Amino acid sequence: MSKKVAVFRKEHFNAAHRLFNPGWDDETNEKIFGKCSLPNFHGHNYELEVKVVGEPDPQTGYVMDMKVLSDLIKNEIHSRFDHKNLNLDTEEFKGVNPTAENIAIVIYELLRNKIESKFDLQIRLYETPRNYVEYPI
Amino acid sequence: MSKKVAVFRKEHFNAAHRLFNPGWDDETNEKIFGKCSLPNFHGHNYELEVKVVGEPDPQTGYVMDMKVLSDLIKNEIHSRFDHKNLNLDTEEFKGVNPTAENIAIVIYELLRNKIESKFDLQIRLYETPRNYVEYPI
Amino acid sequence: MSKKVAVFRKEHFNAAHRLFNPGWDDETNEKIFGKCSLPNFHGHNYELEVKVVGEPDPQTGYVMDMKVLSDLIKNEIHSRFDHKNLNLDTEEFKGVNPTAENIAIVIYELLRNKIESKFDLQIRLYETPRNYVEYPI
Amino acid sequence: MSKKVAVFRKEHFNAAHRLFNPGWDDETNEKIFGKCSLPNFHGHNYELEVKVVGEPDPQTGYVMDMKVLSDLIKNEIHSRFDHKNLNLDTEEFKGVNPTAENIAIVIYELLRNKIESKFDLQIRLYETPRNYVEYPI
Amino acid sequence: MSKKVAVFRKEHFNAAHRLFNPGWDDETNEKIFGKCSLPNFHGHNYELEVKVVGEPDPQTGYVMDMKVLSDLIKNEIHSRFDHKNLNLDTEEFKGVNPTAENIAIVIYELLRNKIESKFDLQIRLYETPRNYVEYPI
Amino acid sequence: MSKKVAVFRKEHFNAAHRLFNPGWDDETNEKIFGKCSLPNFHGHNYELEVKVVGEPDPQTGYVMDMKVLSDLIKNEIHSRFDHKNLNLDTEEFKGVNPTAENIAIVIYELLRNKIESKFDLQIRLYETPRNYVEYPI
Repeated sequence: MSKKVAVFRKEHFNAAHRLFNPGWDDETNEKIFGKCSLPNFHGHNYELEVKVVGEPDPQTGYVMDMKVLSDLIKNEIHSRFDHKNLNLDTEEFKGVNPTAENIAIVIYELLRNKIESKFDLQIRLYETPRNYVEYPI
Repeated sequence: MSKKVAVFRKEHFNAAHRLFNPGWDDETNEKIFGKCSLPNFHGHNYELEVKVVGEPDPQTGYVMDMKVLSDLIKNEIHSRFDHKNLNLDTEEFKGVNPTAENIAIVIYELLRNKIESKFDLQIRLYETPRNYVEYPI
Repeated sequence: MSKKVAVFRKEHFNAAHRLFNPGWDDETNEKIFGKCSLPNFHGHNYELEVKVVGEPDPQTGYVMDMKVLSDLIKNEIHSRFDHKNLNLDTEEFKGVNPTAENIAIVIYELLRNKIESKFDLQIRLYETPRNYVEYPI
Repeated sequence: MSKKVAVFRKEHFNAAHRLFNPGWDDETNEKIFGKCSLPNFHGHNYELEVKVVGEPDPQTGYVMDMKVLSDLIKNEIHSRFDHKNLNLDTEEFKGVNPTAENIAIVIYELLRNKIESKFDLQIRLYETPRNYVEYPI
Repeated sequence: MSKKVAVFRKEHFNAAHRLFNPGWDDETNEKIFGKCSLPNFHGHNYELEVKVVGEPDPQTGYVMDMKVLSDLIKNEIHSRFDHKNLNLDTEEFKGVNPTAENIAIVIYELLRNKIESKFDLQIRLYETPRNYVEYPI
Repeated sequence: MSKKVAVFRKEHFNAAHRLFNPGWDDETNEKIFGKCSLPNFHGHNYELEVKVVGEPDPQTGYVMDMKVLSDLIKNEIHSRFDHKNLNLDTEEFKGVNPTAENIAIVIYELLRNKIESKFDLQIRLYETPRNYVEYPI
């Protein structure tokens, strides 16, 4: 019988962003996104939880070495987004509005390429202590 | 392909309650519910997490505007239950024992009526930092 | 040279209360205390931190055995206030408005009587995660 | 229609452990497990969340009395593992490497025997605030 | 005898900033401030705790109505800094490097003007969950 | 006028220990320290907060660069105690009972040697989320 276990690792990064749809004029952006669209950006301490699901290896008792997962998150996510302006400094959000939903999808896709396909993967991202998202469902 | 994302919003309310089954005598209530049934009530800081699942809108990148969800929770839940006695002051718990389980079901039904049916909805309610419930499963 | 160390123990209790000055009419109470004065009570998960300052005993390395302090808080505070209505069920708040400030002063006085005078004592009381008090200063 | 609710109870225990595969030599253990394999042990404050899913009883409004669940966790888990060395002091980890994954599986099996089969059961175990696991999936 | 009590209120704001000394060239700024000086800004969820010390009013039992303090923080601090770029959008940080230390000093001075001098005032500001400051000492 | 600011940095380490006075027989150790004295050790996730007080440098706006403080804690404390058995693996606790009080004093002395004397220094150490100590007072 399969004994799947989920393992979770929390990391974080601090970034600036603004919400903005380039297909709309400024007035519409402000109407829809409110102060989240202010032109000079604001920012967040993003708290990231990465969930990996698989069977523990019988030799190690690990689904995945948390140090390996932590290093992967640091290399793929933290080094890319930490202390950056998501709108101006990143390839990933050129043409993608950096809502928490879209940031979670981008992070999922970056990590999905680097984690063996036998493992399921899910992202939880806290934009603030009171707002967070999960992807995929 | 569908890209469903879950978005979560945390709010809170402070209320008094006691656990009591009017079909039982006081001795039975005390035996079953212990000090949770003491006649003059006690209370909690209820922490509420509302989960809404759907596809991000391609124009906004939002599943749902968190400000809209926050306002909905304030109008439907906070204004109804905050600083209230659940047993004495509310319509919803006349004849319904205000356990965390039943409070979560009541909150779900109040919000379900106000959120478009294309979205899935789930409630998590913390009665204390060590006791919480989720509905539906 | 003295090596004073502060030791802290966290406990909690859940209680109902309302804010009310019996020297005022209902209208004045409502004006001053708002929904905190609603007649059927509301409640909180009170988180209590007790700070004891002294020199570690050279034999044990303890300022005070945390198990002893925990039991003292349970016997003197938790058993008195947990799952109670502070206004109706307690001697301590007959004639004393159960604001966080006054609850902290009452808890300090109850514990001060039970802790050796060579130790300094301070109370921190969280009424909610966003409101708390300390006594004495 | 069924109205299943999940109820959660958090408890904790403090224990020492080391990661070690007795089928490997010391060098391999150190290579795979790093400082988690140091011979004199290290330790953690394990935070445990137990999730029980079922329908609330119509008489009580409870899925399960949280006091009963709390006592069960104290008797079956806390008394067995708290302030223990998982490798040296417990039957359960003779021949089982005490990774977070394996500890969660062991706790699940201990509690599964004591909780009625009509209830679903899931374990979440925090080894540190940044590393945790869930079982089963 | 005086019975001074400290009351604390937590609020938060989200802002973008960069650390930059205009008297230095870019190379020196980068050497001293590292990625905190990157030109397109980054951001934080700033958690703010305001401590007010005084004697409880004998009529209310309050040092200060927490609703009044909360509104004051919202009007003086949140409305000024939330969802703003501290370097570009604010008067207060023209010529002042927005380190956590300096932000705390600025917040103190803004609130000190609005709180009666009979009360002592102290600011605690979390820039991240692992870095915070207090002013004054 | 002086503008002293306190800056705080949180780090952590995971270690095993037992409480034991070698001048007592086993029975006395067990009587005084209870299960904290069990011979095969238990362990904790120690959360450490280091407070440094001084005047912000007019050029940087920093009391002390938090990266420098973080690296200092990693080099002096984390590398020494993380994933170690405090009783068996460390010089510092040969002959010193590793109570939270004594661990805080040891950490203070290790860091005091490395931080300029113009700065005040204080240690807060969480042994569990409910038990913590501060030194000096």
